[in-house]
Amino acid sequence: VTQPIETWLAEKKRLVDETLERSLPPADTPPATIHAAMRYSVLAGGKRIRPVLAIAAAEACGADATPFLQQLSALELIHTYSLIHDDLPAIDNDDLRRGRATSHVVFGEAMAILAGDALLTEAFSWLSHPAAGVDPKDQLRAVAVVAQAADSRGMVGGQVADIEAERNHGGGMDLLRFIHENKTGRLLTASLLLGGILAGADEKKLAALEQYGRSVGLAFQIVDDLLDTEESAEVLGKTAGKDAAQGKLTWPGLVGAEAARREVARLLDTALGSADIIGGPKNYLGALGRYICGRRN
Amino acid sequence: VTQPIETWLAEKKRLVDETLERSLPPADTPPATIHAAMRYSVLAGGKRIRPVLAIAAAEACGADATPFLQQLSALELIHTYSLIHDDLPAIDNDDLRRGRATSHVVFGEAMAILAGDALLTEAFSWLSHPAAGVDPKDQLRAVAVVAQAADSRGMVGGQVADIEAERNHGGGMDLLRFIHENKTGRLLTASLLLGGILAGADEKKLAALEQYGRSVGLAFQIVDDLLDTEESAEVLGKTAGKDAAQGKLTWPGLVGAEAARREVARLLDTALGSADIIGGPKNYLGALGRYICGRRN
Repeated sequence: VTQPIETWLAEKKRLVDETLERSLPPADTPPATIHAAMRYSVLAGGKRIRPVLAIAAAEACGADATPFLQQLSALELIHTYSLIHDDLPAIDNDDLRRGRATSHVVFGEAMAILAGDALLTEAFSWLSHPAAGVDPKDQLRAVAVVAQAADSRGMVGGQVADIEAERNHGGGMDLLRFIHENKTGRLLTASLLLGGILAGADEKKLAALEQYGRSVGLAFQIVDDLLDTEESAEVLGKTAGKDAAQGKLTWPGLVGAEAARREVARLLDTALGSADIIGGPKNYLGALGRYICGRRN
Repeated sequence: VTQPIETWLAEKKRLVDETLERSLPPADTPPATIHAAMRYSVLAGGKRIRPVLAIAAAEACGADATPFLQQLSALELIHTYSLIHDDLPAIDNDDLRRGRATSHVVFGEAMAILAGDALLTEAFSWLSHPAAGVDPKDQLRAVAVVAQAADSRGMVGGQVADIEAERNHGGGMDLLRFIHENKTGRLLTASLLLGGILAGADEKKLAALEQYGRSVGLAFQIVDDLLDTEESAEVLGKTAGKDAAQGKLTWPGLVGAEAARREVARLLDTALGSADIIGGPKNYLGALGRYICGRRN
């Protein structure tokens, strides 16, 4: 690798931001309210970690991701829809996200529900838009991988388990692992596979990307748990200390902060091993894993 | 055509019902609540008109739809998700649908939101599942057609316009046409295109299917408006007379019941012309159009 990870990250984030801005329906497309609501939440900033991981996977597998940036950016639409719906009064009832008022606070509950629905649907429109130079068979497989990761046995299932754990005030490590692996882990893993599949990677590299994704995905969520206890709302751009206040199941809550940090280190090691298997001259996966595990917001 | 339309319809509806029952995740798949909620709403009955239209399109274009029944049945998941979300307290606040308590009444609001999300996602999982004998390029196109029909410039956009029209207590024929064409018309049209594309139909036949879909789609919705004023909740399986009570924009409300019936007849004529263009020995599109325009629930 030839650039510092911060430079590489900033450049890729900019590409994703530009793609989102350009590819979302303009705010004056009728009906204007829904398009304003979609753009409000997607263009609120955010780390764009899922599309960036997908770009890293594609580049590590030897492809230029430029021809399929729109397909990779669809991951951010799915992530954003899940945040809008999670924040709803009937679910987490949160009114601050990415440092801004949440969708239902600004646009009302009905429009927030529909903006989430529209973003999820738009994501599959982008994912199925033919990508230049990609075998349609591979692209169809990629669409299926993302759909399965986001469905009731994946991301939505993780969210359901999270809600039920909160209502039941408890659960142990098995349940927490199920929640983390599904609520965040599955879509993060699918992001790497999406990049790899569109890059035409072979099955051995795809298996390594999947292993990398599982490790970084779980580490990402444990770091999130740690940050909630350690950082302010100002740094996080969302309500802080909420997990403990709600008696929420978290990794440091179950095993303590020290053991949680050791688990992050162990997962990072596994991820670095998988990144090495993929190899290649433009492989930022290792640096990206280190960055994610060391982040402060 | 060799069967009475009622026999043909009952047989196709049974195939769709079996496919839905078999392809949805079992009710005990963890987390069990979400899978129970998904199955509750999808397996509540319903006319299965979208998958049935897709089967009719595929058969009219000379294909046996059996190898891609799961892909066509995905349309019913999208339709059902839209009903679950429309019925939510924040949107239409309806507690009766298909003769049963709505999802949020039975499972609570959070689970109803997530069951809708899961069904929409599951639909794209089914749509992108490789169909035997279908060119992946055609299937990818079919996924895109369905996604675009359901997005913020299609079905969701129609729902948004409907909500805004109700809040503003008014609007004229242009607005009502926008609502009907998008809220129901786009997904019905996409159903026909999905069947045609997976059947490998040529562009001329696809254009005729699109024309047929637009006509039958609008007629379907005008008939719905007429039935709301004429039939009981017992026959409809949902709250009746609600449109007028809410001062909702409807076709008979704007032009009167007589003119609305004439418009249905005119649209049926157009649809029959399109069905004739497609031709073929197993073409039930004409009979199906007559059935839809003459239905009593």
